[in-house]
Amino acid sequence: MRDALVAAAFQLFLERGYEQTTVDDIVALAGVGRRSFFRYFPSKEDVVFPDHERCLADMTAFLAASEKDHEPVRRVCDAARLVLLMYAENPSFSVQRYRLTKKVPGLRAYELSVVWRYERALAAYLRGRFADRPDGDLRADVIAAAVVAAHNNALRSWLRSDGQGDAGVAVDHALGYVRSAFDSAPAAPQPLPAQPPAPAPAPIGERPEDVVVVVARRGAPLWRVVQEIETTLAQD
Amino acid sequence: MRDALVAAAFQLFLERGYEQTTVDDIVALAGVGRRSFFRYFPSKEDVVFPDHERCLADMTAFLAASEKDHEPVRRVCDAARLVLLMYAENPSFSVQRYRLTKKVPGLRAYELSVVWRYERALAAYLRGRFADRPDGDLRADVIAAAVVAAHNNALRSWLRSDGQGDAGVAVDHALGYVRSAFDSAPAAPQPLPAQPPAPAPAPIGERPEDVVVVVARRGAPLWRVVQEIETTLAQD
Repeated sequence: MRDALVAAAFQLFLERGYEQTTVDDIVALAGVGRRSFFRYFPSKEDVVFPDHERCLADMTAFLAASEKDHEPVRRVCDAARLVLLMYAENPSFSVQRYRLTKKVPGLRAYELSVVWRYERALAAYLRGRFADRPDGDLRADVIAAAVVAAHNNALRSWLRSDGQGDAGVAVDHALGYVRSAFDSAPAAPQPLPAQPPAPAPAPIGERPEDVVVVVARRGAPLWRVVQEIETTLAQD
Repeated sequence: MRDALVAAAFQLFLERGYEQTTVDDIVALAGVGRRSFFRYFPSKEDVVFPDHERCLADMTAFLAASEKDHEPVRRVCDAARLVLLMYAENPSFSVQRYRLTKKVPGLRAYELSVVWRYERALAAYLRGRFADRPDGDLRADVIAAAVVAAHNNALRSWLRSDGQGDAGVAVDHALGYVRSAFDSAPAAPQPLPAQPPAPAPAPIGERPEDVVVVVARRGAPLWRVVQEIETTLAQD
């Protein structure tokens, strides 16, 4: 019955427009009563996004099942892929909905609130993992936002192309960019070298005074240098 | 009259609650007619956020006035600071509104849509600047989202603390983290300075090989160290 309600709703949204379709119209076409509709969907908006609640629950469960040795940024990227899978399950429905959502401000607002909930789920997990790091909450919020933005950039490109091509490859590529910026492969502490620092690969030495010396290859990306510094400072 | 309407609205929102206050109540207290209200505010939500339209316009103008030699990530961080300035202009009003927004789902949704518009303004600028880079749109979207998340992380901490402390310092610190992850200053070789680097405060010396040496006081905040590295790398 749930699927029948979604199908009836979309048929009417496409024929008459979203605003011109009432819940009464939907239940009449589906041949059920109003109470059945509201048993499945709190509002007319919800019938447009029938699977987000399940997907949010899946994501939360996935993150809750994480283990200590899961690299956190990679883990949230994997969690974000669950959203893509939901869209890719039914490309033509996803493309229809994308077009509808672009036209109806109320649905855009609904979608933003759903995206926000995904982002908070990712951030909550990262906040836990980064609890003992300096600026842990800040990192968690920024990385969660970056993961969501990358995922949605690839997802929207795919939807705009009418669901052509491999959305999974595009999303993986986009998430790879975020991982390259934020990935937190641990940088182990290293002793001060006896010789003047060698040109590679980013050893870290400490002086007895209140000073940190970082030596990095000039070509090293800034984020990697920063990571080295942070790791050293955090060891005190 | 605009300020009087905002003041009347907030007085009623705090006394009776947001949902229980109508536009008629607000105009009665302010001593004006309904049409005056709607001349300034399209809806009751808008009176809660009276300055976002101006701030969005300021941000758009600021970005439009950018020059080619503005480093793009730094530029969007500076643009985001305009939002903070708006909040910091009137801390007690901002704190009141933050509490109200947390309690009223409709206002949360409104706020998300405003945040989304800021994010799109930043992303649009970055897309233009990154147009000739591989994955330019992806980078633009991810960096815009990261900047907004960092800004809002610091802003919300400040609002939760009832507007105590220096919000500007907190936001600068948060944005420094984003810049450290994404900043695009080119890394090129530099000439060898005559002396080896002195131990403090964060002088930077270079060797003839492909190496950067940074010496920083251990107590120096990370963003300051990052800034020093960035400055050095950018000097080429």
